[in-house]
Amino acid sequence: MTFEEARAAFPVLERYAYLNAGSAGPMARSTYDAVVDASQAELGPRGGIAAFEAIMGARDRLRTALAGQIGVDAEWVALTTSTSEGCRIVVDGLGLVEGDEIVTTDAEHFGMLGPLHASGARVRVAPVRDRPADEALDAILAEVGPRTRLIAVSHVLWVNGHVIPLDELRAATNVPILVDGAQSVGAIPVKAEPYDFYTVSGQKWLCGPTPTGGLYVRDPEALRVGGPSYFSQASYEPDGAFEPRPGAARFERNWMPVAFIAGLEAALATQPEWRFERAREMAERCREALLAEGFDVATEPGHGTLVALRWPGDTAAAVKRLFEDDVVIRDLPKTGLLRASCGYWTNEDDVSRLVSGLRRLAR
Amino acid sequence: MTFEEARAAFPVLERYAYLNAGSAGPMARSTYDAVVDASQAELGPRGGIAAFEAIMGARDRLRTALAGQIGVDAEWVALTTSTSEGCRIVVDGLGLVEGDEIVTTDAEHFGMLGPLHASGARVRVAPVRDRPADEALDAILAEVGPRTRLIAVSHVLWVNGHVIPLDELRAATNVPILVDGAQSVGAIPVKAEPYDFYTVSGQKWLCGPTPTGGLYVRDPEALRVGGPSYFSQASYEPDGAFEPRPGAARFERNWMPVAFIAGLEAALATQPEWRFERAREMAERCREALLAEGFDVATEPGHGTLVALRWPGDTAAAVKRLFEDDVVIRDLPKTGLLRASCGYWTNEDDVSRLVSGLRRLAR
Repeated sequence: MTFEEARAAFPVLERYAYLNAGSAGPMARSTYDAVVDASQAELGPRGGIAAFEAIMGARDRLRTALAGQIGVDAEWVALTTSTSEGCRIVVDGLGLVEGDEIVTTDAEHFGMLGPLHASGARVRVAPVRDRPADEALDAILAEVGPRTRLIAVSHVLWVNGHVIPLDELRAATNVPILVDGAQSVGAIPVKAEPYDFYTVSGQKWLCGPTPTGGLYVRDPEALRVGGPSYFSQASYEPDGAFEPRPGAARFERNWMPVAFIAGLEAALATQPEWRFERAREMAERCREALLAEGFDVATEPGHGTLVALRWPGDTAAAVKRLFEDDVVIRDLPKTGLLRASCGYWTNEDDVSRLVSGLRRLAR
Repeated sequence: MTFEEARAAFPVLERYAYLNAGSAGPMARSTYDAVVDASQAELGPRGGIAAFEAIMGARDRLRTALAGQIGVDAEWVALTTSTSEGCRIVVDGLGLVEGDEIVTTDAEHFGMLGPLHASGARVRVAPVRDRPADEALDAILAEVGPRTRLIAVSHVLWVNGHVIPLDELRAATNVPILVDGAQSVGAIPVKAEPYDFYTVSGQKWLCGPTPTGGLYVRDPEALRVGGPSYFSQASYEPDGAFEPRPGAARFERNWMPVAFIAGLEAALATQPEWRFERAREMAERCREALLAEGFDVATEPGHGTLVALRWPGDTAAAVKRLFEDDVVIRDLPKTGLLRASCGYWTNEDDVSRLVSGLRRLAR
């Protein structure tokens, strides 16, 4: 697949400099077609046996496809609605109590922070956001102590795209690690196996329907099913006691729309082999173009596919003005940051439009 | 709207005697069209401000529409993926501990039983399934004691369609009541206000997309946000501590697909005024037709819109054989029961096809 072919798959790119895959990726026409096509099943006898069996089969296939994205076996993958749901599943299953501690960073999304806080454990926050990326590991480890029951961090920080050195973190501690993969899966190469829990978002860098996702659980037997659903049980008693299904499927909480299963499968089938290399290259170009223009870039070189810059004015207003010129990025409330997401589909023109749009605003 | 007009809205009824709204209702062509139409937003700049604001506005409208279905104010309604998610939200928020008790019945769905069990409280099961419907109230109250923190029951039992006398239950006790409304909302008139929590399914009797739903919470301030999401917070701290949003919206856990919001709105707009009367009449006719044919009907007259019969043979095989003749009902595993769902769209011919299909199988 050539770059031009890959780019042409996404209708939104015909008009927009769409640089916000960190919120939701561009959707390919073929993904949309798969969604619409599979939606037709809802017009038929959707409560019938054939529909039910088709959905269960499709769920199995999607688990396998998502597992392939993070280099693990399908048996350890659960389908979820989002990375946030994945975080809730983990926290609900750990059975944390007062006195337990969780270590996280000051650059995490509320989708993870909220569940951490709700666990009742004390949440210790490692300051990484405003420090050089190579200090992140030490900052995190400095918060780990004898009461730490979980380390919960992003693989790629959503605020500035910095990659947390997970290999080193894994080597340095035996504490269970929950990785928020919202800004990594589909953006950079991921091997989830060494970590205890790893969340996947379907609608961001994988360009699937909103909302879709997955969760890797290395040892399902060691995690309680905190929020059981129909999918959790192989059999059950009148009081709700149940025998869990084998593998990580027991943690599944929701009925993913049948059309979205088909859509995410289709999206995964459109990925070019050269995607990671190209995305990284474009993020680098974007970074350099912003620096060359004199902007205050907050992202160091050699990290993920997000590029953040410190904006002196009203960030929300800046995003709105850029959108009027068909340039789509986002602001990060309360941080003073603007964030551009570069994917394998991004071209030089997208970057130029962003830079010239910002230049006009900065005048 | 005439009966013929109302029926003609559902393409599935052209071929099938579709009697399984208890699993998933028929979908109107106009609902499907609304889903497909709204799906196009995913092809555009879906991570842009305009898309985000459109979705937040659509969520507000849907909350209002669902609230209207159960006679409450929109401020006390949360959007959910299912009745099961509603049950998890309630259980997660109550903070139950060992020694606490929950009272339920032996005729509940695992979507509720699973979370009840996972709460850690002792689940006391009132035997109602194999008893006359007018003994249900006493059976439930007999399990209520000083340690009861929650009564969790269906409004209409999914196994046989019997209506639990919630008014009398409310009058008899001050214990918080969680009502599973999966088989009631859209099937029979519902006023949720007297109960503490009431769950709504969008894809069953409301004929919306799968999965959609809602949860009524009478006093949001009195229920902890056990599984927070981005939607839960008005503002938050670095450790995840947060100021909840006003009203029940704080309990929302998932991003409902924008197309499904539009679809459920469209589905609610297709409801004829005479729907409850007609559905009840058809359930009664179905019951009588089965009795007239000598079947062992498990449903008493004058209840909901589900009709169950005890089947002496293999219930799964019976459902499969009926499906081959385009008659769609379901079996209830381990109970020996077959269950037919009658809606306002059901006609005499649907009932005849069911009865003659069963007659052939019984030979």
